[in-house]
Parts: sequence; structure tokens; C-alpha cells
Amino acid sequence: MQLIDGRAVAAQMKKEITEEVLKIREAGRKIPHLAAVLVGHDGGSETYVASKVRTCEEVGFISSLIRYEEDVTEEELLTCIYRLNKDADIDGFIVQLPLPRHISEQKVIEAIDYRKDVDGFHPINVGRMSVGLPCFVSATPAGILELLRRYEIETKGKHCVVLGRSNIVGKPMAILMMQKAYPGDCTVTVCHSRSENLKEMCLSADIIIVALGVPEFLKSDMVKEGAVVIDVGTTRMPSSTTRSGYKLTGDVKFDEVSPKCSYITPVPFGVGPMTILSLMRNTLLAGEKSIYK
Amino acid sequence: MQLIDGRAVAAQMKKEITEEVLKIREAGRKIPHLAAVLVGHDGGSETYVASKVRTCEEVGFISSLIRYEEDVTEEELLTCIYRLNKDADIDGFIVQLPLPRHISEQKVIEAIDYRKDVDGFHPINVGRMSVGLPCFVSATPAGILELLRRYEIETKGKHCVVLGRSNIVGKPMAILMMQKAYPGDCTVTVCHSRSENLKEMCLSADIIIVALGVPEFLKSDMVKEGAVVIDVGTTRMPSSTTRSGYKLTGDVKFDEVSPKCSYITPVPFGVGPMTILSLMRNTLLAGEKSIYK
Repeated sequence: MQLIDGRAVAAQMKKEITEEVLKIREAGRKIPHLAAVLVGHDGGSETYVASKVRTCEEVGFISSLIRYEEDVTEEELLTCIYRLNKDADIDGFIVQLPLPRHISEQKVIEAIDYRKDVDGFHPINVGRMSVGLPCFVSATPAGILELLRRYEIETKGKHCVVLGRSNIVGKPMAILMMQKAYPGDCTVTVCHSRSENLKEMCLSADIIIVALGVPEFLKSDMVKEGAVVIDVGTTRMPSSTTRSGYKLTGDVKFDEVSPKCSYITPVPFGVGPMTILSLMRNTLLAGEKSIYK
Repeated sequence: MQLIDGRAVAAQMKKEITEEVLKIREAGRKIPHLAAVLVGHDGGSETYVASKVRTCEEVGFISSLIRYEEDVTEEELLTCIYRLNKDADIDGFIVQLPLPRHISEQKVIEAIDYRKDVDGFHPINVGRMSVGLPCFVSATPAGILELLRRYEIETKGKHCVVLGRSNIVGKPMAILMMQKAYPGDCTVTVCHSRSENLKEMCLSADIIIVALGVPEFLKSDMVKEGAVVIDVGTTRMPSSTTRSGYKLTGDVKFDEVSPKCSYITPVPFGVGPMTILSLMRNTLLAGEKSIYK
């Protein structure tokens, strides 16, 4: 069993992006600028955004953090988005989700200029990904592809089972794994809460990508010998042994599943660290106008 | 075994749309207007477009046919599209594919205003379909959903195997069949030319949708007793027994597969007749501004 070390790959990617930014600086070109919009004070969101801003600084990007209180109106938020769309200095921006209930996330996502949509959530980017055109691929699926690529995991013709059909992980992951590409070219099965034959499907899988958000869902009797297991789950479980009072728990019962795997991602430090670096990569692509002019 | 009679369902849909148009006429509202752009004189394309125009007339829509010779430049064609985009009288339009090699189909598709893209090929419509937003769903997948719906075929929790990963059938079909909806809520597997385990997958399927374009690909030893089989294949095979000199052949070896099925679509007169009616439905939705304002 080989552990897929997301932290090490993310560190390597960070180094590569830092070098790219140095080259941009030396050439006198514009330094990529990422803006993040944060509404309210949700603990998770605060942590994620702080981490994104810090990583921007570390790789040499310019970053801006725009904060709104919980009671910001949808209109105010949309006005902010239109301003960021027009601001030539901003290469890409994200609006941290979730948003308060009185604001339509879908409306917000669609208001973002797709050419600055480094989260890859805009329907144009989702659609372009589906038909195989250059686009911003959302961070978690892009991070998983990067892990498969860097560990040179064979995918062509393999059976990849995706557990979960969310818009941000399950569906894009399924589409990406079936594309005529590497990583890709898999037979892809998507299972979810309504699936009658989930266990049999998992047992026939060469690659399992678990994105259900159900702690320790995948047990050893659901995994065949030699499978590759990618765990996207990150549920905060209360814990008395950590300083923060919680512990990140994956969707895989790691202790019993890992001995059967050829490769497996741990939680934390598997898929998680890749997500921010995928966002950084998208910001670099946005700054360089590599995808859209 | 029950035959899914696409011709009968299409006739019923045609009747329903005709009645809708009558109501629109009586209310003094604008009659939906579909334009079709046809480049060159490909036999298949001529037939399809003629059939679309005729069906428009039959349901009471206004239709326009715009013809270009094979040597039209990409620029001329794009200029035509921009004009149709702006023309307030045109509710929806299609550019019949395939186009001559010197014209980029993708550029043409992306030039169409997505609000008039009744073929549902524009990345915005593809992306919106993927995330589950109102949109124009392309004709073949929409037609298949309609057949499943009208025959009240159970889909929830079932295993649906899609053979083929094309942008116009395989991928959208897979996404639609996994959505939290009826028809939908299936465990979905997509197989293709690179799949190592295609036969086993088909044998475990409750519903098989074949869209490979390989005549008589699906044999009886690949289908389990009681399966639902939807055949999207329509290859023109030379034939000495028909007046046209060819015979439409499906992707399913019908004679040996059909006895095992609970439901099966024939070729011709299965999925085929639904395609044009789906286009008519989209034109009605476009005219009524039901999806986009």
C-alpha cells in the first residue's frame, strides 16, 4: 500500500507556481491578483479563506480580501461582483460558500464573469469541461486529477466508481474520469444515496473516489484487493484529543481499508491540501490569460 | 417484451404541441419561429432539415430555412448567426451539423445566443443541465427521457449503463440519468471503446442506453433478462431491399436481444422520431420564454 501524500504534492506545486511567478516578475509582466469575498464569520469559511490568502502571499500573488457582514443584501453582494468583473487589476476571484440563506448562491455564481471564475462553478466552465474545452476546472476535481497524474496511476480502461453526485465533486469528477485523456479513459460509475447496488459496484472498482460527506462510509468489505481509494470527505468530528476540539474525518474507514489498497489518500493531508493549490493554478492561468483572452 | 413505440409517442407530442400553438394563436401571442441553417447538400442533413421544417409547419410554428453552399466561409456563417441572435422575430435556431471541415463547429456552437440555442449544444446549456438548472436539453437525451416517462419505466435506484461518451448523447444522458429526478436517480455507468469490462457492466444493467454508432453491437449475451434497452444507433447500411438503397440499422441486434427485454426501442421508429419533437418542444419553450427571459 502506498500513501498518496497530498501535502508533499501540494508543496511541490507551490514551489512550481512560485517559480512561475518569479519568471513573470522578472519579465515585468503583471503579477496575478486573486480576490476573495467572505460573508459572515463561519469558522470553516474563515479558515479556508485565510489559508487561500496566505497561500497567495507565499507563491507571490497579489490577493485582496473583501468582507461583508452576515446581513449583507444579495444586491450589495452582486454589486461587488459586478465591480470585480470590471476591475482590470483582478485576474480571478472567488466568493466563499456557503452564503447566508437569504442570498441565492446560484445567482451569485452566475453573476461572476466566467473568465474570472477561478472556482470553476459558473455554468460556462462546467459546460466547457463537459465537452472537453479549455476551462477553469473546479479545485477538488482538478486536485484529484493532479494526484493521479503525479503518482502515475493507470486509469485507461479501468473501472472508476465515484460515490456522490454533487455539482462540485461527484458530477465533474465522473465527467473528467470518462474523458479521452490521462487521467481518464475510465469506465465510470456514479453511485449515490439512491443506489441499490453500491457495495457490488465498489467491489468491482479499480479506483474509488468517495465524496459523500459521510464519515467512515467506505469499509474494507466494499473494496477489492489492489484498489486505488481517493477520500474527499472532510467532516469535522468533535474530539477531546485535539487542541481545536475537532478532528477531520474522511469518508473512508482508513485503518481497515488501507491495507487492501494499492494507493490511498489519507484524511487530513490527502485531497485537502491539493484544493488550494488547484485554486492557485487557476489563478495563475487567469493571470496569464491562458484559458480566456 | 413491450416495444417502445417512438412514432406513437412522437405523434402524441405533436398533437400536444399543436394544441399549445392553437392556444397561443387564440390568445393573440407571438407564434414560435424556428430558423434552420443548412450548409451544403449532404443527403442526411437535407433529410433532417426538411423533416424539421415540415414538422414546424405541421405543429403551426413559423419556420425559416437559410441555405449556404459548401464553400461558405466561417466568417459569413458567423455573421448569419449574429444576425439571427439579434433578430427578435426568431425565437430559436439551429445550425445543422456536420459542417464542412474548414468551419469550426465549436466556434459556431458558441456563437449562438444560448437563449436561442434550441439544440442545447452551447456550453451554457450543457453546464446548466449538469448542475440541474432550467435549460435547453439537447434533443436525443430529452427524447429518451420522454420515452421513459411516458412508458412509466421505473428508474430510481436502478443501474443504467450508457454505452458511448459523445457530447451529444452519452455524456448528457449519463448526467440526466443520475440527477435527483424522474426519470433519473439511477446508478449510472458510462462505457466506451476503452472499457475493459463492458460486457459485465451491460449484464448487470437494468437499463441500457446504446449510443455507439456501431451496428448491432449489443448482443443477447450482454443483456440480462428483463432489461430496458434504448437504441440510439442509426447507421445507414446499404440495402437491396429498400427503395432508398439503404436501411437504418441500430446498435442493438434486435432479433436476439428483444426477447430478453422488458422494454426495447426499435430502429427505426424508436428514439429517432422523438428527436424532432424534442426540438419542437424546445422551440415552444423558447417562444414562450419559459426558460430564459
